[in-house]
Amino acid sequence: MKELTESVSRMISEFEKLPGIGKKSAERIAYYLLKLDKQDAMALADSITAVKENVRYCKHCFNLAEDELCDICKDPRRNQAILCIVEQPQDLIVLEQTGSYEGLYHVLLGRLAPLEKITPDQLTIAALVKRVQSGAFREIVMGTNPTVEGDATAYYIISQLESLAERPKITRLARGITTGSNLQFANKEMLADAIAERQEMP
Amino acid sequence: MKELTESVSRMISEFEKLPGIGKKSAERIAYYLLKLDKQDAMALADSITAVKENVRYCKHCFNLAEDELCDICKDPRRNQAILCIVEQPQDLIVLEQTGSYEGLYHVLLGRLAPLEKITPDQLTIAALVKRVQSGAFREIVMGTNPTVEGDATAYYIISQLESLAERPKITRLARGITTGSNLQFANKEMLADAIAERQEMP
Repeated sequence: MKELTESVSRMISEFEKLPGIGKKSAERIAYYLLKLDKQDAMALADSITAVKENVRYCKHCFNLAEDELCDICKDPRRNQAILCIVEQPQDLIVLEQTGSYEGLYHVLLGRLAPLEKITPDQLTIAALVKRVQSGAFREIVMGTNPTVEGDATAYYIISQLESLAERPKITRLARGITTGSNLQFANKEMLADAIAERQEMP
Repeated sequence: MKELTESVSRMISEFEKLPGIGKKSAERIAYYLLKLDKQDAMALADSITAVKENVRYCKHCFNLAEDELCDICKDPRRNQAILCIVEQPQDLIVLEQTGSYEGLYHVLLGRLAPLEKITPDQLTIAALVKRVQSGAFREIVMGTNPTVEGDATAYYIISQLESLAERPKITRLARGITTGSNLQFANKEMLADAIAERQEMP
């Protein structure tokens, strides 16, 4: 809209790029921010800057971290012999919220999706194989989403672990979770059941 | 969520403060920004900073401006003898989009709302009376929203102008616009009609 000042137009178009924010929502947010105290509006801008400057992936597990290692990898009370593989940091968060899992994680940062040209080298699978090769884990829990792509990713990972001298036991989350759904939106109870009843993979 | 890093939690809670953004939307935006190139994410943060640093209210009409005066007040081609009073800069924008109005504006930055404790001194009414006192205007167009509060604001302003030696003609936007609705969401055609058929106020 040419009647807006240049800064406001630019801010609206930046907000429009966010997922779930249309033109009207972006404008509404812009007018809200225009009226807001400078300090409060800057808190939003600064929080974005802080994330982009401070947050990185954990060197071990690729969870979100503000140091070299994430809070879970740094915690000596976690069971160091169980490793749960998840697609995204968000999946780790929902599993943590159940309070049912005490082992470590490995975040793939995606899943295999040939149609979207997402291949194994774009995920953290090579680093995962190295971690497992160290022999530290007696169990690997597959926590990929219960979808075609999540399952395909799990089976691809198993194939990569096949050649190891001492392959740990491999389990997967019990299918109390509905196939085709998305792990991020499952309720805690269902996920807690799925952790308790995880099944050994053949 | 304690499993998120501190920066990410803070960013999510900042986004949750925005109008129309709930917890799930804020999280979705956060994950989107986490994945985004640093440069693109910083463009959003910078656009907010720029607005809070550059944008102010026009010294004459209280429209949004990046200089002392807004683009409309700076434009010598505008009809300097007609003044349209609107509640918010957004209202000015929708009126401009009709292309039907060529005069100047005065933005009240709100409307009288006793229940919300919004009183005349919180609006730009004193500045408006001063502008009109200068005798520069032969017509004042009331462009407040066609709501109880918008009308009350218009009548309050008229009462303030009553005492002037030479009161300009006062008109209001024709009620092609639906009473009780919100001016910002009216379509351009309806607003263009309302400008063309504006009625003299008794």
